[in-house]
Amino acid sequence: MKTEKPADFLEAGPRDRSADKRSSILNAAAEIFLNGGFLGTSMDEIAAKARVAKQTVYAHFSNKRDLFVAMVSALTNQASDRVHVGVPEFHEGDDLKRYLTDYAVRQLQVVLTPRIIRLRRLVISEVLRFPELGEALYSGGPGRSIMSLAAIFERLAERGVLAIRNPSLAASQFNWLVMSAPLNRAMLLGDDAIPSASELQKHAAESVQLFLAAYRQ
Amino acid sequence: MKTEKPADFLEAGPRDRSADKRSSILNAAAEIFLNGGFLGTSMDEIAAKARVAKQTVYAHFSNKRDLFVAMVSALTNQASDRVHVGVPEFHEGDDLKRYLTDYAVRQLQVVLTPRIIRLRRLVISEVLRFPELGEALYSGGPGRSIMSLAAIFERLAERGVLAIRNPSLAASQFNWLVMSAPLNRAMLLGDDAIPSASELQKHAAESVQLFLAAYRQ
Repeated sequence: MKTEKPADFLEAGPRDRSADKRSSILNAAAEIFLNGGFLGTSMDEIAAKARVAKQTVYAHFSNKRDLFVAMVSALTNQASDRVHVGVPEFHEGDDLKRYLTDYAVRQLQVVLTPRIIRLRRLVISEVLRFPELGEALYSGGPGRSIMSLAAIFERLAERGVLAIRNPSLAASQFNWLVMSAPLNRAMLLGDDAIPSASELQKHAAESVQLFLAAYRQ
Repeated sequence: MKTEKPADFLEAGPRDRSADKRSSILNAAAEIFLNGGFLGTSMDEIAAKARVAKQTVYAHFSNKRDLFVAMVSALTNQASDRVHVGVPEFHEGDDLKRYLTDYAVRQLQVVLTPRIIRLRRLVISEVLRFPELGEALYSGGPGRSIMSLAAIFERLAERGVLAIRNPSLAASQFNWLVMSAPLNRAMLLGDDAIPSASELQKHAAESVQLFLAAYRQ
């Protein structure tokens, strides 16, 4: 791509340039809202950070509230994509414990970052004022994880690998067994409580062990 | 008690009256902080709500921050006491599934109230400013639950009722299996997402079933 189109960015059409600007504004909004909160942030600051005119911000987002909600959705979806896009299929002969542990570790690594923890704190603190934020984070985060896991468990049950009669229930159990303990500690005790990579690996393996003790065929 | 000391409240000594005032101030602080947040609340409002002089508030709590932290600890401990004080012992011949389900239902009922959910949201929104709040909520809430459950599981393992080698790990798993799914929904989706009593009962029973499939002797 790059050798064929060396001047790709400069020659970008109006739609690409518009998408680039939207993306710059969302990145700037994330940085500023996550540090200053909703009330403490102005559209001027975001425009300055994104290096665009204030009218450009308003061309993309009609008000601060819309931009705030779009920023929460964008960060949530980016994080979820990193967990759920390109999940390998489980193949005959694969190690089931390892397969599920790898999935759990990926989930943990994506969510347990200072930025996502800060996003969750900000959303939770604004839920009463902006209910749509909580919905965006729930549906794009744990809601999407649970649906994605349910589809995986349903296939594994059909193939006789797991003894699961209610894939959605098993998916919710797996999701929260894996995510809750470290997530709650990080939410309440701060970034220092985010576990190390080896602690996450151990926690994922312990969670999968409990899950498989109940659901292995 | 009441027939022996009918005028108990009126005859209360100075220490009792001081404890009564402290308790009134904490109740008023809970109501006002939970509605207005930390920055949106003044000591004047709390004094007025508690019907005490402002200097009385300051006699008990040297500043707004101290009162805020004391209020969070008091609410957390009151809720935890309702889960953990007077837990019945498991007796030979009792139904283990029922015993653990009752425990889980009690935990769920105490935490999944609009007031405690609002407290959790408030604490999470102020964790960066007041790290001691997150610590108070964590240690008095899930931390205490996990320690209490670990002690129960350790005894049940010693008696050969459960096959648990790591009681703290099993306690953390039980706690989060039970609490997480409904707690996260309520935190993000609001009070309307608090499950009904029969939904909590069903969720508790499903959580215990998974736990026992893995740990039953």
